[in-house]
Amino acid sequence: MTDYLAGPHDGVAVDGQGPTAAAGFRGAGVTAGLKASGRPDLALIVNDGPSQAGTAVFTTNRVVGAPVMWSRQVITDGKVAAVVLNSGGANVSTGPEGFQDTHATAEKVGEVLGVSAGDVVVCSTGLIGERLPRDLLLAGVDVAAAELRADGGRDAALAIMTTDSVPKLAQITVTTDAGTFTIGGMAKGAGMLAPAMATMLCVITTDADLPSDVLARALPAATSVTFDRVDSDGCMSTSDTVALLASGASGVTPAEDEFIAALRKVTGSLARQLVADAEGASHDVAVSVSGASTQEAAVTVARAITRSNLFKAAIFGNDPNWGRVLAQAGTVPEYIAPFDPLNVDVSINGVMVCRGSRPYADRAEVDLASEREVIIDVDLHAGAESATVWTNDLTHDYVHENSAYST
Amino acid sequence: MTDYLAGPHDGVAVDGQGPTAAAGFRGAGVTAGLKASGRPDLALIVNDGPSQAGTAVFTTNRVVGAPVMWSRQVITDGKVAAVVLNSGGANVSTGPEGFQDTHATAEKVGEVLGVSAGDVVVCSTGLIGERLPRDLLLAGVDVAAAELRADGGRDAALAIMTTDSVPKLAQITVTTDAGTFTIGGMAKGAGMLAPAMATMLCVITTDADLPSDVLARALPAATSVTFDRVDSDGCMSTSDTVALLASGASGVTPAEDEFIAALRKVTGSLARQLVADAEGASHDVAVSVSGASTQEAAVTVARAITRSNLFKAAIFGNDPNWGRVLAQAGTVPEYIAPFDPLNVDVSINGVMVCRGSRPYADRAEVDLASEREVIIDVDLHAGAESATVWTNDLTHDYVHENSAYST
Repeated sequence: MTDYLAGPHDGVAVDGQGPTAAAGFRGAGVTAGLKASGRPDLALIVNDGPSQAGTAVFTTNRVVGAPVMWSRQVITDGKVAAVVLNSGGANVSTGPEGFQDTHATAEKVGEVLGVSAGDVVVCSTGLIGERLPRDLLLAGVDVAAAELRADGGRDAALAIMTTDSVPKLAQITVTTDAGTFTIGGMAKGAGMLAPAMATMLCVITTDADLPSDVLARALPAATSVTFDRVDSDGCMSTSDTVALLASGASGVTPAEDEFIAALRKVTGSLARQLVADAEGASHDVAVSVSGASTQEAAVTVARAITRSNLFKAAIFGNDPNWGRVLAQAGTVPEYIAPFDPLNVDVSINGVMVCRGSRPYADRAEVDLASEREVIIDVDLHAGAESATVWTNDLTHDYVHENSAYST
Repeated sequence: MTDYLAGPHDGVAVDGQGPTAAAGFRGAGVTAGLKASGRPDLALIVNDGPSQAGTAVFTTNRVVGAPVMWSRQVITDGKVAAVVLNSGGANVSTGPEGFQDTHATAEKVGEVLGVSAGDVVVCSTGLIGERLPRDLLLAGVDVAAAELRADGGRDAALAIMTTDSVPKLAQITVTTDAGTFTIGGMAKGAGMLAPAMATMLCVITTDADLPSDVLARALPAATSVTFDRVDSDGCMSTSDTVALLASGASGVTPAEDEFIAALRKVTGSLARQLVADAEGASHDVAVSVSGASTQEAAVTVARAITRSNLFKAAIFGNDPNWGRVLAQAGTVPEYIAPFDPLNVDVSINGVMVCRGSRPYADRAEVDLASEREVIIDVDLHAGAESATVWTNDLTHDYVHENSAYST
């Protein structure tokens, strides 16, 4: 089984400049005044080329914000010159005026950078249903453009934080037969690409020289086994966006599989950092399902378990309640995941508390209190496929943070 | 729109003898010693006839307890002489020995009542993965049989409580052209038939004279619009059982539709009582979706909303966060629920805070703090169908109760 999140920092540096680690990129993070707190709230990442290949993947929610509607159009030609991101407001369900705010932001970025507005990806995160203050936003773009620096990646990561307690950065430099290239990125959010506790935004850059069609294949190949394997609270945001930009500044064109392997390390690290900083969580929980007939079966069973409030509350209580694991596995239809409900094994942190769907080791042997990480292994005895999905426990702090978010 | 839970006590008495309200039934609730607390934990409901028609519906979970495996067989011949229920242990994932415990319980009931063990439905609720103390269980059956009384329904309801704070009872007497008949019932649990916060058990009895094939049609016709429209936390139990027994003691054979109408009132009342007593909840929340193209579309959108932790936490915080309502509606695939994501209305407690997917009335006008009940109306503007699903808010107490359940 390959869990791209299990060893997320395998060769990945998390204390660097993230999206400006690769040659050809500048970044900035400034305070535009969108957040009542007065903290930084506007980020800009610019691709100085020579190439400006780009792609992105978005939330699959049918209700999407103006920035997602705009950015879907931007990437159709495979060219992305810059990404502008703001916290302090998601610009979702804000009508035509909200779309005009997004459009005006892209136009402003295009104007100050001398690029086409149609090559500017826009991302916004925050509360749904409130207009952004356009004047502050546009003035903030001017400030950000003036602050652009080759070591501005960390500032950018700071400016997109909402409930995040730390910025998420990752970068890796890889040497292959073709030469040496770098991939770096930043992310915010406490959830994932599809489901999300809060909106997840991510910008990844590389100085590899790759055309946009390769990027468009590589990005989902990476997100599908990293961000898509994180499910903090099962809620799908209206704004999730992961953008990938390539400057070609290294002059190196790696083989596609080598690029994907490196990209997965970066997205895996960022995804794992999101879990580790999830709102109010006290445990990071890996649910690994093995013995499945297909990948889909393994992922579906794992996801069913990670979405159970009863299971997640038990983990918060340091209670190795394997009955709740089994009960969730049983909710997956047989046509998706064929297995014998009377022959399932469950291990928690290495202790097999359930074997053949019956009690085995004493649950008192399981230590959940000592470590933040919890590993749940479920063996379906129905095949050779496996998958891991990461989640968090359900805590008082989660309820507190999410009951007090907008008021 | 017919919401069978909106006026649940319409003609239904909730302070009577529930499952022994109808003629031909006796009940008892005793302390067998299964619960550490020493509270009543064994209930018995007996059908003295003259008819012993019966049916049941069970959880759709593939992982089921020994009692469900047993009882599925019991009902195949349409005859149910008695139902024995215990709290203090679910007898799920307990292997062949656990099945033998259930079998022995049914044999014991058959022996003391002089009926076939094959006509005894068995229900158990409590922790998964632990054997029941068979000696205590069987001795408890003797005690219960000696205590059987025509006014024992309330005692029975008390004996099946787990985290319930009050027993749930309902009864209605209906006069039709065919004559007068009574339906009564009891339930425990804080969830629902399919998903369940804790196991949901329910026994309904009637003195109407109806064959088992009519009962087998009537019961799902009632549960599908009542218990199935309650979704406290989206978790599906391994033990949920709703049994329906008819004694024929009234000598009255009502028309099937009249019986179903009355049955829906009883199951509606019990379902609504479950919501009102859900673990740790501070709000009962009705999510009504109208303007849907089909019933399935309406129910699926409503259920998507009721399963959102973000939405439920916002309600706990008395925050009319309509963005989280819209975001959940958007997660339903278009082939299930066609609607325009840019043309959805959301009202909260009668205040239309979102119209055409944009802000409308000031959210400050919404009062969530004054009442336990919260009504969310979502209009998809895509058809004439509607449905309501009830849920609860996500609270600190929910997390507390479910993080400390088994330890």
